[in-house]
Amino acid sequence: MDPSPKQPRIDDAFGRILARCWAADTAPWSAVEVIERHDGLIVANDASRYFSEPEQWSSLDRWVWEQAAGRILDVGCGGGRHAVAWVARGHDVVGVDASPEAVRITRERGAEAVVGSVPSLPAGLGMFDTIALSGDNLGLLGGPEQAPQVLAALAAVARPGARLIGTGTDPGDGGTDHAEYHAWNLSCGRARGQLRLRVRDGAAATPWFDYWLAAPGELTAVVAGSAWTLESLEHDPAGSGYAVYLRI
Amino acid sequence: MDPSPKQPRIDDAFGRILARCWAADTAPWSAVEVIERHDGLIVANDASRYFSEPEQWSSLDRWVWEQAAGRILDVGCGGGRHAVAWVARGHDVVGVDASPEAVRITRERGAEAVVGSVPSLPAGLGMFDTIALSGDNLGLLGGPEQAPQVLAALAAVARPGARLIGTGTDPGDGGTDHAEYHAWNLSCGRARGQLRLRVRDGAAATPWFDYWLAAPGELTAVVAGSAWTLESLEHDPAGSGYAVYLRI
Repeated sequence: MDPSPKQPRIDDAFGRILARCWAADTAPWSAVEVIERHDGLIVANDASRYFSEPEQWSSLDRWVWEQAAGRILDVGCGGGRHAVAWVARGHDVVGVDASPEAVRITRERGAEAVVGSVPSLPAGLGMFDTIALSGDNLGLLGGPEQAPQVLAALAAVARPGARLIGTGTDPGDGGTDHAEYHAWNLSCGRARGQLRLRVRDGAAATPWFDYWLAAPGELTAVVAGSAWTLESLEHDPAGSGYAVYLRI
Repeated sequence: MDPSPKQPRIDDAFGRILARCWAADTAPWSAVEVIERHDGLIVANDASRYFSEPEQWSSLDRWVWEQAAGRILDVGCGGGRHAVAWVARGHDVVGVDASPEAVRITRERGAEAVVGSVPSLPAGLGMFDTIALSGDNLGLLGGPEQAPQVLAALAAVARPGARLIGTGTDPGDGGTDHAEYHAWNLSCGRARGQLRLRVRDGAAATPWFDYWLAAPGELTAVVAGSAWTLESLEHDPAGSGYAVYLRI
């Protein structure tokens, strides 16, 4: 009898990778993040980027980081790179991440953090002056269907006049590498850059989740239907990245 | 409509990884080899190990390398690490690899190589004094069912008195990480350490293939039924590796 392939065990694969990197003093390539897209694409990245310092960030992420004020909610805090840098500047920061290990590490590094994800944020977070989706975490808006719920959930913890800041990536036309995937997404009624991903590590994988590379026009359309107002959208002149600054 | 996950495209994923590493002057972590096991386990390795020099090899692989004599068939030559080192010593070497890119790189490095795999070796290779399955390539014996065919195919290109040398890994009891996989294999009528693997890179994957971590007792049983005679089996005192030296 020839066995059929099995699926990996659902577990905190992302957190396991972060924990291995953290235990190795965040040395380059001490842990590899393997990301699988549901069309079979697989990529492997150096996980130490989740512990990078501000001088190693993109200029857009540094700009976003400078825009924070008051009490900050760091959505998708990962290993705490942004939260720790804000704490060092004297900010009150709460990180939120779906990964229990990410939360443990962020706390160990001196920033408050709780397990949770958007749009169903955990109760009791309190209210914030800044909601941050740094490090390309505008992707956590998930897609055109989920984004309004995420923006509403973030508005519900925003103090009057609060800002929502973050960075994202324009999927463009996909080039030769991604055009087929974009077309497949569109044929399924999904957004062009609505990536369905999971992180894999050893025998473990995260559940599949949607991560949205929204074109600026797609993003502004979603924001227009929300409680938020777009104040600025900055493009990376050299690449496909952008940063946004919204107000409530 | 929600799309179901797709399978990656079957292509020379292993060769693509080698080519990226080779194009980057074999710098550490310039390319990552992602290997998937069919129970969902996934591992990511630095592909530069496929270009390592003799002083970086295991003591068993160095020992095997010293045992070569005359004209050598390097089975599963990869990026040519063993073949190139033998050529530098004045040996006549032919590498065989299922990956066209691996063959291209091995040739570019100055060793002869052809696309092919065991047990169906390409025609016209000629006869050899040494058959080498270095770098853990005893795994290419594939499993208890395939191994006799592989050993017969290698015997068919062996000159009288030729040697078959190589290194392998004892799967042991699998420890906590692999015991479940071993049990699954056994329940399917496969050998305990008969790994079913594929290499993944970007949108590409190799076909699934069997790679056999044979216990020394399993290996000697298979050899006993072949044209080959076991002259020695050397254990790594510090690990689970072993080296074999067979004669025809």
